Amino acid sequence: MPAGVQVGTGQLPINQLFSVAVTGGRDASLDGAVQRFVTQLSRQTGIPFRPKPGAVPTLQIHADHSRQAIQKLGEDESYELNVTDSGAKLTAPTSLGVMRGLQTFLQLVQITPPGFAAPAVTIKDQPRFPWRGMLIDVSRHFIPIDVLKRNIDGMAAVKMNVLHWHLSDDQGFRVESKVFPKLTGMGSDGMFYTQEEIREFIAYAHDRGIRVMPEFDIPGHTHSWYPGYPELASGPGTYTLDGDGLDPIMNPIEESTYKFLERFIAEMAKLFPDAYFHIGGDEVDGKQWDANPKIQAFIHAHGMKNNQDLQAYFNQRLQKIVARNHKIMVGWDEILHPDLPKTIVVHSWRGQKSLAEASKQGYSGLLSFGYYLDLMWPAARHYAVDPMSGDAANLTPEEQRLILGGESCQWAEWVTPENIDSHIWPRNAAIAERLWSPQNVTDVASMYARMNAVSLDLEFLGLTHRSARQHMLHRMAGTADITALRNLADVVEPVKDYNRWDDAKGPIDFHAPLTRMIDAVYPESDTARHFGDLVQTFVQSGYKDQAAEAQIRMWLSTWRDNDAGLQPLLAQTSLLQEDVPLSQNLSAVGAAGLQALDYLDKGQTAPETWKTQQLAAVEQAKPRQADLLLMVVAPVQQLVEASAGQHN
Amino acid sequence: MPAGVQVGTGQLPINQLFSVAVTGGRDASLDGAVQRFVTQLSRQTGIPFRPKPGAVPTLQIHADHSRQAIQKLGEDESYELNVTDSGAKLTAPTSLGVMRGLQTFLQLVQITPPGFAAPAVTIKDQPRFPWRGMLIDVSRHFIPIDVLKRNIDGMAAVKMNVLHWHLSDDQGFRVESKVFPKLTGMGSDGMFYTQEEIREFIAYAHDRGIRVMPEFDIPGHTHSWYPGYPELASGPGTYTLDGDGLDPIMNPIEESTYKFLERFIAEMAKLFPDAYFHIGGDEVDGKQWDANPKIQAFIHAHGMKNNQDLQAYFNQRLQKIVARNHKIMVGWDEILHPDLPKTIVVHSWRGQKSLAEASKQGYSGLLSFGYYLDLMWPAARHYAVDPMSGDAANLTPEEQRLILGGESCQWAEWVTPENIDSHIWPRNAAIAERLWSPQNVTDVASMYARMNAVSLDLEFLGLTHRSARQHMLHRMAGTADITALRNLADVVEPVKDYNRWDDAKGPIDFHAPLTRMIDAVYPESDTARHFGDLVQTFVQSGYKDQAAEAQIRMWLSTWRDNDAGLQPLLAQTSLLQEDVPLSQNLSAVGAAGLQALDYLDKGQTAPETWKTQQLAAVEQAKPRQADLLLMVVAPVQQLVEASAGQHN
Repeated sequence: MPAGVQVGTGQLPINQLFSVAVTGGRDASLDGAVQRFVTQLSRQTGIPFRPKPGAVPTLQIHADHSRQAIQKLGEDESYELNVTDSGAKLTAPTSLGVMRGLQTFLQLVQITPPGFAAPAVTIKDQPRFPWRGMLIDVSRHFIPIDVLKRNIDGMAAVKMNVLHWHLSDDQGFRVESKVFPKLTGMGSDGMFYTQEEIREFIAYAHDRGIRVMPEFDIPGHTHSWYPGYPELASGPGTYTLDGDGLDPIMNPIEESTYKFLERFIAEMAKLFPDAYFHIGGDEVDGKQWDANPKIQAFIHAHGMKNNQDLQAYFNQRLQKIVARNHKIMVGWDEILHPDLPKTIVVHSWRGQKSLAEASKQGYSGLLSFGYYLDLMWPAARHYAVDPMSGDAANLTPEEQRLILGGESCQWAEWVTPENIDSHIWPRNAAIAERLWSPQNVTDVASMYARMNAVSLDLEFLGLTHRSARQHMLHRMAGTADITALRNLADVVEPVKDYNRWDDAKGPIDFHAPLTRMIDAVYPESDTARHFGDLVQTFVQSGYKDQAAEAQIRMWLSTWRDNDAGLQPLLAQTSLLQEDVPLSQNLSAVGAAGLQALDYLDKGQTAPETWKTQQLAAVEQAKPRQADLLLMVVAPVQQLVEASAGQHN
Repeated sequence: MPAGVQVGTGQLPINQLFSVAVTGGRDASLDGAVQRFVTQLSRQTGIPFRPKPGAVPTLQIHADHSRQAIQKLGEDESYELNVTDSGAKLTAPTSLGVMRGLQTFLQLVQITPPGFAAPAVTIKDQPRFPWRGMLIDVSRHFIPIDVLKRNIDGMAAVKMNVLHWHLSDDQGFRVESKVFPKLTGMGSDGMFYTQEEIREFIAYAHDRGIRVMPEFDIPGHTHSWYPGYPELASGPGTYTLDGDGLDPIMNPIEESTYKFLERFIAEMAKLFPDAYFHIGGDEVDGKQWDANPKIQAFIHAHGMKNNQDLQAYFNQRLQKIVARNHKIMVGWDEILHPDLPKTIVVHSWRGQKSLAEASKQGYSGLLSFGYYLDLMWPAARHYAVDPMSGDAANLTPEEQRLILGGESCQWAEWVTPENIDSHIWPRNAAIAERLWSPQNVTDVASMYARMNAVSLDLEFLGLTHRSARQHMLHRMAGTADITALRNLADVVEPVKDYNRWDDAKGPIDFHAPLTRMIDAVYPESDTARHFGDLVQTFVQSGYKDQAAEAQIRMWLSTWRDNDAGLQPLLAQTSLLQEDVPLSQNLSAVGAAGLQALDYLDKGQTAPETWKTQQLAAVEQAKPRQADLLLMVVAPVQQLVEASAGQHN
């Protein structure tokens, strides 16, 4: 949603004669962006454009200046877009602004009774925050470049401007180092990016107006460093990538560690042109430090109080290395320490509180708390998280300016190249809007309408957030007809937060297939949301809205009857057997809801015994099954209770 | 279906430990094929393989010899595959046979209650015909290399071995010629393949065991040659690619024509390594020859009777040029003429009759009649077409050996890169089986079962024959929820044969968008076929099969109720307005069927007035609407007639 929109009269038809012309500031990436814009508009509409030579262009584009060769934080991204029934004009101070405006134009084009068209409108737009990023973890599961590229395309579509590339973690080191080749040679399963691939990928992102910030998480989350370079660890012995179950930390008291980092960071600082360099710094489990007498003696000798002080010492030295390489250091909450210079950026996974603390002390900050896509929250919940809310709301304007924006986070414990798109999209579009649009744009229903529209466009960009589920359901079923399976998949969601990661099951096997129903379904069920809305409408009408009731009945009877058709299939394949109770519960819930409607229709109060029985069925359907939640249980419960006179 | 299958006991589990080892004859393309096999098996099963080093390989592969550097017609493709519950062995005389066997192994792997597995089986297999091809027309609509590549992958999956690349036609010349650059420069819309791309593509196909035979269709279908080289035409004047509406033919009486062809064919013969070279030769409309007095004088002076004799003269000279370039000439039926040497191959679009005639005269032949994918026939109809049936059935064994096989044809008047996959797949798999499997493999139900299974695998290969429909329906609807639209799309098929191409509408606009419902739907409706089968089951049970009736009722009520939900959407978008009557008819047909079932259930004979009314509704639903046919009308008609006592 743009910062300023003024609706006009009429609409601009988009047909085969559509054409574009560019004037003013120009650079290679602008020409590429215009080319891609035309291709994408053609894909979305299915129209092969054949403009008449010499005709007035449909869309006139003007940029005052070309953009920076290396994209800067805060570079002007504003633009103005004016659409009338006879043509459109897009102007911007920089070609970066033009790129943003082109995405808005793509979003404006919709199908209408006379054909595709963009409504007449005047838009003046600029981002609320200069830093609108997404973190992708490629350590836990390796994500190939082509998958990252299509996600870059998606980010550009929703005007995000930073890819935070989480390149190393315990489970794998993913960047070729020519100086220290054993980092990937022994610290990965052979899957990593070559420097050539990285350079090409950064250029790809730059062409789409996206900065690429690398993260090398130290001193914790560093297991993968030690198979090749065990001398960096704080504990003795050798390390293998798999299976020693340790949580080793980098040794901050040996000069050799800093010499290593000096050379490593120099190499990486050259490879990654962005001004910011993320050093992680989160979740440092101090066990190896506690167990190492030399380290404890060092802490004592230097008058430090604890491991936190030692990490601050480490970070100070690290910051100097990073600064010598002309980079600004970024790290997670835990790096915040008064001994560090104000130039660093604190990246908060803990909440607005630590962001507020940091900015009060003069540090810049980024918010990721509330934007963790791997927690399987609905888009609305992410959308409600504002970097300036909570403790940050009370900051002075000057302190607030230090809050640069935020980043969604796609941690990769439970994703593969096959299903990562559906874990990111379309929910990431809601976070992108939170970071771009004015703070008062908060209406959830209209957010969902925009998100659904953008979701369709993203499939035309090549993202697989919808099609992958289809493939995965086919794999599970082994059959061509998956109607009944899809009915079930449509109304479940993965368990939330970190509840999939059940301690009882032991540590995650990062090499296991991710091919269960939980891996295939969307994090958020559209069907369940619509059904819930319908039930609310029906209840609020005093059980009189017949159109809503008809739709509710249609859903309920589909669910009630679904199990009969689905059970034979579930029994046939190893991947679906765990879903047997889920399907049975859906059927029971559907039946309960239909009977409740019958009582409501007749104006009768349902008998107590019936109610008790149905509520038992409802309760049975509530707990997770196969790590999935049946998302239509609560509205059905509401109907059952209402029919028994327990009006809400 | 392999030539020989012996079913064993038990099954071979496919799990993370799966591994492969290769011994014997080896070449780069074998290693690549094994690599791709493992990748595809991993995609189909979703299992990331992690074999234990040193363990006995699950699948042992042995090829006696490596294959030819340039794939030959008739090169040994046989293999033996033995699967037991503890391992599998694939052996073949050549690495080409190994490739075919690997595809069989992929087809054997299915999901079962304990997990993915291949059944224990002993297979001895070889193809019935040595030439199993597919023609893809890239002139009418340009098809980019990446789309061709995924179709090559699909062809390899169903063991086809020739891509017949229809590279030039009236609407566009698609191959870069360095000798005659104006062929693409003025004879295409800028979309063509560079020689570098072609070389790389041929290598890609070769790696997958597929020959690439080029076709340059002459002397007819040559409009695109003349904008650049008008002197080649038989009529005077200049030519433009678009819009002069002529049907020009190459001039066969000027020596300059042969000089041109000599140089052109020499260049193309080097670019395409295959031994066969297709010169088209079909549908020569003689108008320009009739209108040219010099040509008529030439016919007269050389004692020819007609234009056919002149084309034979042209072909004789052409054949010599082709032969001098060490290629075997292939052409359509029309080239058959006793003056041509027996080395040529006659490619029949007309039927087994001309194939039989050719082989009686000692010519080799290929069948494409009956395999035209653009006619929108159901797979079963293609499947029933056998190269050795009809007139060919009565040939001597020696004459039959001259029938080399056949080719499916994907003419490109009505396809784009977006929907070409769904026009080809999965139906092409049925034609591939006809050409590979023994003649007596003809059971339609089991063909459909195999075709459906392969169709799922093809999506994991990257083909978009299912996912594209989803995208296109979303585009038409402009909404996220397309349930009702999908219900309609599921039961329609495009009009058959060339009925879309209605003369009344004038010539085809090859630049128009192909974004209507007819462009999105599958050529064959699975739902309609299943519904028809259900009705047959129900009728044959004397209207007693309750399970069948329940399913029939479910479908009918979905259809009856579908229009109410769909109409608001249809009205909203330009691309769906033409489908309004279609949706209404589906609703009417659904209602009629349900009422018929009610009469049948009660054992009543439906009243005559009711019957007349319903049959009128049925008749109204029969004609094409928006170039689509409602495929469930006939079975509903059967129910209506049965309920009125008119038992079939």
